[in-house]
Amino acid sequence: MEYYLDNAATTKISESALKAYIDTATTYFANPSTNYKAGQNAKLKLEETRDEIAKILDVSSNYIYFTSGGSESNSIILSSLLWNNSPGEVIISKIEHASNSEFARILKEKGWKVSTIDAPQGFINPNKLKSMMNDRVRMVCLQYVNNVIGSIQNIEELVKIVRLKEKEYNRKIHFHTDAVQALAKIPFSLKELDVDSASFSAHKFHGPRGVGILYTRLVNQQPLSKAGGQERGVRGGTENLPAIVAMSVALKEQLGTTTIKPSCYDRIYDLNLYLRNNLHTHLLSPRGNYSPYILAFSVAPFPSEVFTRMLNDKGFYVSSGSACSNNVKAKGESILKAMNYSSELSKGSIRISLCDKTTKEEIVAVVNEINNLYDSVVR
Amino acid sequence: MEYYLDNAATTKISESALKAYIDTATTYFANPSTNYKAGQNAKLKLEETRDEIAKILDVSSNYIYFTSGGSESNSIILSSLLWNNSPGEVIISKIEHASNSEFARILKEKGWKVSTIDAPQGFINPNKLKSMMNDRVRMVCLQYVNNVIGSIQNIEELVKIVRLKEKEYNRKIHFHTDAVQALAKIPFSLKELDVDSASFSAHKFHGPRGVGILYTRLVNQQPLSKAGGQERGVRGGTENLPAIVAMSVALKEQLGTTTIKPSCYDRIYDLNLYLRNNLHTHLLSPRGNYSPYILAFSVAPFPSEVFTRMLNDKGFYVSSGSACSNNVKAKGESILKAMNYSSELSKGSIRISLCDKTTKEEIVAVVNEINNLYDSVVR
Repeated sequence: MEYYLDNAATTKISESALKAYIDTATTYFANPSTNYKAGQNAKLKLEETRDEIAKILDVSSNYIYFTSGGSESNSIILSSLLWNNSPGEVIISKIEHASNSEFARILKEKGWKVSTIDAPQGFINPNKLKSMMNDRVRMVCLQYVNNVIGSIQNIEELVKIVRLKEKEYNRKIHFHTDAVQALAKIPFSLKELDVDSASFSAHKFHGPRGVGILYTRLVNQQPLSKAGGQERGVRGGTENLPAIVAMSVALKEQLGTTTIKPSCYDRIYDLNLYLRNNLHTHLLSPRGNYSPYILAFSVAPFPSEVFTRMLNDKGFYVSSGSACSNNVKAKGESILKAMNYSSELSKGSIRISLCDKTTKEEIVAVVNEINNLYDSVVR
Repeated sequence: MEYYLDNAATTKISESALKAYIDTATTYFANPSTNYKAGQNAKLKLEETRDEIAKILDVSSNYIYFTSGGSESNSIILSSLLWNNSPGEVIISKIEHASNSEFARILKEKGWKVSTIDAPQGFINPNKLKSMMNDRVRMVCLQYVNNVIGSIQNIEELVKIVRLKEKEYNRKIHFHTDAVQALAKIPFSLKELDVDSASFSAHKFHGPRGVGILYTRLVNQQPLSKAGGQERGVRGGTENLPAIVAMSVALKEQLGTTTIKPSCYDRIYDLNLYLRNNLHTHLLSPRGNYSPYILAFSVAPFPSEVFTRMLNDKGFYVSSGSACSNNVKAKGESILKAMNYSSELSKGSIRISLCDKTTKEEIVAVVNEINNLYDSVVR
């Protein structure tokens, strides 16, 4: 028996998304940048899909760009700063995905000041941000839903601070948010958030790998390279139409077409509540403002690696830390430390992440298994 | 009736590659960066596929990195120069794909000298390269097979010049080649070419969109951002395993497993010869050292846009210039000018590009149609 409970790492592509991939690859195989009928049909399909996604996100299609995924969406925004020949300052949280935080190194190398802001218990203090703002800041990069513990940042309030400072300094300040763990997970409105740009990834919501969205309303967004000029110069390379259409199908499947609240949100919320109410372990996820799709806890003083392996061996697929970071040793752990969790609690951290397919039976089974193991080895 | 003759723009994914995509997406859906069995199985599949591709290319698997495509492979190499804080010089041909040539702007902005080398009739003069070499050159970036006319650059000879200069200056000089139109099209050996890095794209040989290969034997290749650290830090983002496996299947389908000469090469060569011998139009492709998969000719003084549209209307899908460049106005034309073709010939350029599925009947039909049109409107 296998229980897949690592949906924040990746989700399985849905049957209808896979079908859309196959249909599109077969029917619309021509290059959308060509002028003959087959190419123009592919181009039409591409723009139809952009319109559909824009409608779901309730924004202009002009602000939607297709990329190869969340990491690339983030990279396009961060690397664009390198065009700037008078380096300024970037404020970035200490709990970002590596695709953002990795840019700190090169920006510093190029003379930028990179100021990091911590997030005690997963939340950035708006007053802290306010106190860090100054007229050299060119970009603020703060994650929306944290991938390790599921905390939802109050982006709206944080953006308001930046907008006020923009007026004070009479200068544009770019607010970027990595919203990869938000789309099709929690209800939100890009308009209300008022961010300048946001990143999304299809494989986090049962779409295919290798495709994502960059939302940016800075229409003169200058990427590092335009390459072939596709995606209005923001992301070059032949458009991955089969994956783009499949992503749109997966998104509609999770959200319907008129709202951005996932149709299974309430059920997932209840499953998360069951985990919270029944696990004997130490809760790391916050008690309010959290995504129900992610639950982090600690089995300290037991090390998570060993505990996770025992769970894995019994078919419960959960993560210690975040998947993307197993390559960057102990990254999840360092993010928990940036949240002011003790080293001991951080070292014992485990993440369960759900999806629309997750059943009550699976959740009951994993709770029983974790409690049995925890009670026997830790208590 | 439709005749798809624009395979240099993109090819249709093969049935077996599509099947491999579906199977992999379904069976190996876990994130390869996770530690449980499903994730480790995905990781094994990823490394098996890397080994298979390395074997076909007859190089170490350590030199094979999976990317989102040819454009990204090129970008990883070019953008890595930005780490260098003492800007040097880059020599780049005037006939590169936009994903390379676009970097000229930012490199210049960052203090680099960008020296461009022309390619009369599609070929770079080795003596010209020799005369341009100096001890400030850090990278030489020269395309292998040109996407507009199909000329095959004598990379081996060009690399030798650079290697000799390396010894003379006692300093490493990176030689990068965009080999997107070479793989599964012409026989070659990466070892014999002796390049430091090369780019490949799956959708040019009946693999899926959104996946490619970066070959680089510089194991300390520093990308602009490591993101999540996947692909040994060279290309971040969750690995697109279904597309990677499908790419490998498509490659094996074109090449078999032990050679890098396409199994249909001789047949395509004959089809190309038929085009050369029977078209009434002005040949732009070279008479020697060409890829049989690409044939360019000019219908001058008739403008190619109008001529192409007439062909397209009759179901013959051919390109004026290159697909990737319809977004960057008249790019194909400017590449032809960099090859010393007259403005008139360039403005009348049309490209036919073949694939293993192209039949003699299609080629005979397109030749008849072009000759009829050309004879009636031009002569």
